[in-house]
Amino acid sequence: MGVASLFKVVEGGSVTAPKGFKAGGLHCGLKKTTRNDLAAILCEVPAVAAAVYTTNVFQAAPIKVTQDSLAASRTLRAVVVNSGNANACTGKQGEADAYAMREETAKVLGVSPSDVAVASTGVIGELMKMDRVSSGISGLPAVMSTDEDGAEQFCQAILTTDLVKKEVCVSLVIDDREVKIAGAAKGSGMIHPNMATMLGFVTTDAAIHPDALQSLIKDATDVTFNMITVDGDTSTNDMLLAMASGLSGNKELTEKHPDWDGFAAAFRHVCQVLAQAIARDGEGATRLVEVEVSGAVSDLSARAIAKTIVGSSLVKSAVFGADANWGRIIAAIGRAGEPVNPETVDIHLGEIAVLTGSKPVTFDEDEALAYLKGDTVRIVVDLKNGEGTATAWGCDLTYDYVRINAAYRT
Amino acid sequence: MGVASLFKVVEGGSVTAPKGFKAGGLHCGLKKTTRNDLAAILCEVPAVAAAVYTTNVFQAAPIKVTQDSLAASRTLRAVVVNSGNANACTGKQGEADAYAMREETAKVLGVSPSDVAVASTGVIGELMKMDRVSSGISGLPAVMSTDEDGAEQFCQAILTTDLVKKEVCVSLVIDDREVKIAGAAKGSGMIHPNMATMLGFVTTDAAIHPDALQSLIKDATDVTFNMITVDGDTSTNDMLLAMASGLSGNKELTEKHPDWDGFAAAFRHVCQVLAQAIARDGEGATRLVEVEVSGAVSDLSARAIAKTIVGSSLVKSAVFGADANWGRIIAAIGRAGEPVNPETVDIHLGEIAVLTGSKPVTFDEDEALAYLKGDTVRIVVDLKNGEGTATAWGCDLTYDYVRINAAYRT
Repeated sequence: MGVASLFKVVEGGSVTAPKGFKAGGLHCGLKKTTRNDLAAILCEVPAVAAAVYTTNVFQAAPIKVTQDSLAASRTLRAVVVNSGNANACTGKQGEADAYAMREETAKVLGVSPSDVAVASTGVIGELMKMDRVSSGISGLPAVMSTDEDGAEQFCQAILTTDLVKKEVCVSLVIDDREVKIAGAAKGSGMIHPNMATMLGFVTTDAAIHPDALQSLIKDATDVTFNMITVDGDTSTNDMLLAMASGLSGNKELTEKHPDWDGFAAAFRHVCQVLAQAIARDGEGATRLVEVEVSGAVSDLSARAIAKTIVGSSLVKSAVFGADANWGRIIAAIGRAGEPVNPETVDIHLGEIAVLTGSKPVTFDEDEALAYLKGDTVRIVVDLKNGEGTATAWGCDLTYDYVRINAAYRT
Repeated sequence: MGVASLFKVVEGGSVTAPKGFKAGGLHCGLKKTTRNDLAAILCEVPAVAAAVYTTNVFQAAPIKVTQDSLAASRTLRAVVVNSGNANACTGKQGEADAYAMREETAKVLGVSPSDVAVASTGVIGELMKMDRVSSGISGLPAVMSTDEDGAEQFCQAILTTDLVKKEVCVSLVIDDREVKIAGAAKGSGMIHPNMATMLGFVTTDAAIHPDALQSLIKDATDVTFNMITVDGDTSTNDMLLAMASGLSGNKELTEKHPDWDGFAAAFRHVCQVLAQAIARDGEGATRLVEVEVSGAVSDLSARAIAKTIVGSSLVKSAVFGADANWGRIIAAIGRAGEPVNPETVDIHLGEIAVLTGSKPVTFDEDEALAYLKGDTVRIVVDLKNGEGTATAWGCDLTYDYVRINAAYRT
């Protein structure tokens, strides 16, 4: 059964497509360019909300503030986001600043502070220029809209070294009502399993129980955002936030609802499209790398192996060079720390077999070169050692990755 | 107590400096250039021997052969090494080829096959050109010598993408006899904790019990070779082999010998110098990065954190760019999966304080830039959370790393 049968993609749809959501963004002066750097999403009713956060020990101040807001009621009315400054490792002042962002946003949008989530991304360890932030927040109401331009301005405002905006929207029918799920995300560097410098925002007009939404966002993250890696680093600021307005009028979704599977598949699809877009837009990347592992002793084991392959600097460099160097793939598999039978591994690059039963297969180097020069490279590994499967996404390692990161602050 | 008081460095000394050892190398045609690619060390008496190997699941054929030789008697007479082909993932034929290398080397050197260790490094998954190897082996006796040129030819032959040879020699007095310990190593890419594409050979004329040598080589590796990372990848071929001729005439060393601490310190020093040399010569590297972690809950925890920092692509890129971006250091600490108090971390770059009690310190950017442009960058982290300490070594991530690895096979 293809998931495509359960929902359809809404072309051009973004976070304002589900009923009840406005979005907007503007430039307040945190970025040195004139690109947008402050944005918000507002829901006209209290939205059931759920979030997952970075596992980094050094959680940035906005993470604490958002957790605080969600602890109050499990609903939100708005989220305010800035780029250009992560507000991380900024001590008591940083925390006060994040709370001030919450307070000021609540005031201009006419909601209460605990209805507001806060997210930040950018440089670590510098205090926020709060005069610019405050001035920007006061300008937010004027730029918020339910149309595509509002979503566009929002998407632009959350980017840092990203080259392209990342958004997606799907729709499906639940209880005879059209339900939409949309998402926007940013992330380009410091991207690794267990959340990264990645911000993601999912809006939906579905009615859903908060427990169901929380468990869905966690499960979907495990197989999508937590399966991408750009450079092995995990940021202090990651957050994926979902808000459900309930305005489509369906009966409240829980795992027992007859249409749950369809909704969950659609939700995962939104997360997967955003995650793949982040991997493809990895700093300096020229191609998306998709690693599929099957035959592992468990799904968890397959995930660990897939992430080790997609995170290997040597594999990533070889993909950049369009070099069918499967020896580096086998070396990555072998160091993943997972059970592997060293005699039974098959590896394909796309459709091209390069290793069968752990032995090299003679393949057409020209064909392999042509395949590896495409914009998506699939590395398919069958360990023949169990039933576990996983897919991970990443990108190649290029001169531009080094250039971008050799002088990010300056 | 400085370790320097326990032993002295022998300038220009290499693996033939300890009594009883010959070495040599030649070009047999495994490398495309005319550089040496086959080499051997021969001991005139049975040498007590010990080794540690890669933890990669896919161990190359020569690893098995060496384990086989050492299992026979715990002494060796010789080791034969080739570069240009790793003889890994080469199946039954590869194993037969590695045994043939052992057999042929034993024959031309006049020893028995189980007296010979085999080591290989190079491309994975291609069969050895055994006609060239055999012809090379037959030429080995003519090039083996006890002088520095023999050691020089050996050191050159084991290199792959290395830019410089790596060798060291120290001497100390035990039981009124001069004892020398010398080492040679190669390794440049696919270098990561728990052994990597790294071959190391230690010779000594000390008399030592095989159990003591095995436990020493393991302990020394844990704090030296296993604390370096170039790119997070671990090869299929790593091996560190120690051979002790006993010809200096000291009483057999064990942990109970009164001079054990001095010998162990000298042995660790040899390993550390070689490990640092490998890190400094990391593929594309322009500088050595040394990360010192203290105040962790245990030494093991400190090691994990030090290796996470030194392995971070973002930290490595920042060092290449001479950018004092300590935010990336804190992000690496925070994702290492080890206990950390997020309020108490101090970070210095060399002598320059950049973070105190997890809060940014205003520092002179010009001074930091000048420091980071040096050929060694020390990142000093005090977690103030326990007594655990560790030091790890790595290098910066540069355009040249990408260039070298984008087309290694071709």
